[in-house]
Amino acid sequence: MQTLLTHRTIRSYKSDPIPDEVLERILEAGFRASTTGNMQVYSVIVTRDEEKKKELCKIHFNQKMVEQAPVLLTFCADFNRFNKWCRQRDADPGYDNFLSFFTAAIDALLVAQNVAVAAESFGLGICYLGTTTYQADKLIHFLNLPLGVVPVTALVVGHPAEDPPLTDRLPASGLIHYETYKDYQADAIDEIYREKENLPLTAKLLEENQLQTLAQIFVYKRYTQKDNRHFSKVLLDVLTDQGFMNND
Amino acid sequence: MQTLLTHRTIRSYKSDPIPDEVLERILEAGFRASTTGNMQVYSVIVTRDEEKKKELCKIHFNQKMVEQAPVLLTFCADFNRFNKWCRQRDADPGYDNFLSFFTAAIDALLVAQNVAVAAESFGLGICYLGTTTYQADKLIHFLNLPLGVVPVTALVVGHPAEDPPLTDRLPASGLIHYETYKDYQADAIDEIYREKENLPLTAKLLEENQLQTLAQIFVYKRYTQKDNRHFSKVLLDVLTDQGFMNND
Repeated sequence: MQTLLTHRTIRSYKSDPIPDEVLERILEAGFRASTTGNMQVYSVIVTRDEEKKKELCKIHFNQKMVEQAPVLLTFCADFNRFNKWCRQRDADPGYDNFLSFFTAAIDALLVAQNVAVAAESFGLGICYLGTTTYQADKLIHFLNLPLGVVPVTALVVGHPAEDPPLTDRLPASGLIHYETYKDYQADAIDEIYREKENLPLTAKLLEENQLQTLAQIFVYKRYTQKDNRHFSKVLLDVLTDQGFMNND
Repeated sequence: MQTLLTHRTIRSYKSDPIPDEVLERILEAGFRASTTGNMQVYSVIVTRDEEKKKELCKIHFNQKMVEQAPVLLTFCADFNRFNKWCRQRDADPGYDNFLSFFTAAIDALLVAQNVAVAAESFGLGICYLGTTTYQADKLIHFLNLPLGVVPVTALVVGHPAEDPPLTDRLPASGLIHYETYKDYQADAIDEIYREKENLPLTAKLLEENQLQTLAQIFVYKRYTQKDNRHFSKVLLDVLTDQGFMNND
């Protein structure tokens, strides 16, 4: 519990390596996560090579921690291994569709979060890279991922070179619904986002961006419709190219 | 670490309730998970009502533990709350596309795994319900989920009425790739699946199903192409209906 409650994303790392046995233990803890039918349809790509980290840093929108931290873990939905096994065992696999991709993505994401928690329990820091899905096509090429394999998230792992405070969270009552979904009225929305809107960081961002509301920063600066639609098409094309869109 | 390493899926539960304060602490630990841009685009639906659990049990393919355990948690990708906030703050949200759905699904899944670990650290048992995505359309109707909300997984949580051993896992070396993906040769596939194929449970399943290989049980009994394609279409239709497929 203490590990979960004290999670902070770390964006600055020492260059100290992670011992092999620590990395192995962290990954093994990850692999204890539940998976659909215990099929374990995921793979993890470990990047430690300095040159490869530099290239992956560029792919991940130049987030410097990718280069700085000793380890990058890329978590992939992977039906390639399972399909090969099926074919070697006289079974014709039917995992070339969207449901199978999503099933494998769930597997990979639960493993990733277990790995994050395990790494933190060793005193290491982590940062998720949301850029993984945006750049899935480039990562597939760079990491040599075959048909049936799609990267869904990545974790930077290393020794923290900073000690940031906990970040804000929306009040739990705004995220939980009892029995059925209770849709939000205007005053509930005001209440849920009040603390976030009143943070000193928010005032700083509004000043820097010359915008009126924090929501405008998300919508017009950070996660724009244009980018979202572009990367939606990239990701859907990746699913087609990797053999996961044969649904008919 | 110990919690992660001793995870077992629990399929039989006592009817004892989970105290409110324990449930709250578990969910709050879940909400500490990383999310894209700290947007927290997820919601959790808590089901404790006996009648509702009975109905949800039917939706989840009659898995009796849904009815038996005191709590069912349904984790949803949720851009509804965020979109409402944006509109109230003079920002026109652009989160009606596949990338936004997948981003929100990642958020929800990392929270779910944190909740699973937190519950286990309290001595509770959990079981994931893969049926959540198969039955997303029915769950949306039953839980009253508005536009922008899609269920992605669910957890049964309660006091274990069984104490099963750890289940098998593929050897870690078969799941990890260093630097780039090394595709599997036939002998590697044999080695990775050998332990699983030699379990007493496998022999029992082959006998029961009158099939030659474990892979055939997965392909022709458990997760068939026909079912996968059917549920792929259901899930893609759900994404369209819930407003997440405006990609152009």
